[in-house]
Amino acid sequence: MSWSGDLYLTERAVILSIGYELLQGRVINTNATYISRKLSLLGYEVKAIISVGDNYNDIGKALDFAINALGARIVITTGGLGPTHDDITADAIAKYFRKKLVLNKEAYEMIRSKYESAGMEMTESRVKMALLPEGSKPIPNSVGTAPGIHLRLELVELFALPGVPKEMEAMFEQYVEPILRARTGIQISEGYLEVMGVPESGIAPLIKAIAKKYPIYLKSHPQLHEIESPLVKVYIMATDKERSKARSLCLEACRDLENKLRTLKEAKIIRSCECS
Amino acid sequence: MSWSGDLYLTERAVILSIGYELLQGRVINTNATYISRKLSLLGYEVKAIISVGDNYNDIGKALDFAINALGARIVITTGGLGPTHDDITADAIAKYFRKKLVLNKEAYEMIRSKYESAGMEMTESRVKMALLPEGSKPIPNSVGTAPGIHLRLELVELFALPGVPKEMEAMFEQYVEPILRARTGIQISEGYLEVMGVPESGIAPLIKAIAKKYPIYLKSHPQLHEIESPLVKVYIMATDKERSKARSLCLEACRDLENKLRTLKEAKIIRSCECS
Repeated sequence: MSWSGDLYLTERAVILSIGYELLQGRVINTNATYISRKLSLLGYEVKAIISVGDNYNDIGKALDFAINALGARIVITTGGLGPTHDDITADAIAKYFRKKLVLNKEAYEMIRSKYESAGMEMTESRVKMALLPEGSKPIPNSVGTAPGIHLRLELVELFALPGVPKEMEAMFEQYVEPILRARTGIQISEGYLEVMGVPESGIAPLIKAIAKKYPIYLKSHPQLHEIESPLVKVYIMATDKERSKARSLCLEACRDLENKLRTLKEAKIIRSCECS
Repeated sequence: MSWSGDLYLTERAVILSIGYELLQGRVINTNATYISRKLSLLGYEVKAIISVGDNYNDIGKALDFAINALGARIVITTGGLGPTHDDITADAIAKYFRKKLVLNKEAYEMIRSKYESAGMEMTESRVKMALLPEGSKPIPNSVGTAPGIHLRLELVELFALPGVPKEMEAMFEQYVEPILRARTGIQISEGYLEVMGVPESGIAPLIKAIAKKYPIYLKSHPQLHEIESPLVKVYIMATDKERSKARSLCLEACRDLENKLRTLKEAKIIRSCECS
């Protein structure tokens, strides 16, 4: 619990991944990793990543958990925006926030023009992708077909993105990221230190002391084997409104830890402090 | 919503992944994929996968959400069992279920013997790994050091496993899987069908019809591009108490869909029905 850095990570975010394929272990949720990394570097505190199925009740319960139990003010969903009957994300979001699901003209035009240039007509399944919760803005999809959903509510700002990674990533970078960057002014510096020869349990007291001393996030990750061939990677993250201050803090804490590690007989620093 | 197969998927499970590294996008949650795949094939309905940080409040809220909102009767956690001060999973579980955290003699012996054979003593950080919620059984760790936790409660059976994938997988297979297999007698048959030349939105009405007609789970996954180079993979899963019946149902529904697809002019079946 070394989140003294909470001070600057004021905006809470939750990622909600939607799709039975995630719950059945048929797809690895790399989307959540991508988004959580992006959000962290933009200065948001990701409180949880939740995967549920394409199920109205469960999507509603997950939104409730994210917003009311965890206090999320940014919610990013992925998946369930396609043309098939089980792609229910837009409708589930509308139901949860008590909005009507309406034909969004801008979204309709985005979809229609794509099919038209391929000589295809608008069928019911294709029109379905233009049905968004009332008050939403469609998020342009430069890679695929289904637009995303941007919904600003009283407490929460929600972005619904598709599940196909290339589409999701392009839409995040082109649309979501500029909006989120403008909401915070947080700078992050992060770094690693690697030490061989001492098991994680041997380093634990030093880590604890440094984590208490500085307002940083600090975490050790054993890489090989605790006893036979100990190699521990220590991750450090510092935040500040100013980048140079975040970096100074990251380096100061890291060097302090490194100096303490050098006093241990078996410890061999194989990567010295680095902070971005 | 083609889960008519719910009939046999009676036991609800939730996977709770614990660790800030997941929320910061520094680690891909392959553990959850592994466990959700295993649980699905064992006949459990995974209702959600949740990742939260190493934080007492958030772990408690996630357990509450899993058990009370989603009705989970099996909860499997990963991560946070190591020797460092921020590994708080055992304590957080104890707090949530109002159990004392006590030194488990069996766990202590497992840990002590490992360090002893490496000529190392039991320090406070190492003893910490033997502190389990009262009434738990330690789960042997054949790969690493920290034992897991098996806690049988009135409504819920909880298994806490470490975050290191190799340790987690070995412990799941050697300890958790036999217990979970004995609780259900469900057989699953699953298969794929692949079709080129028709966009997912063109296949959607056929999928919808088949999903309504049979008690199966059916899901289309676009592989390339909806318009330019459509290639759609269709996943089919059927469950039954008898394996042969599950397989017949999977094949029957798949072939029905395949025959309907063949009536579309542009459709080219590139992988014919397969069911395990």
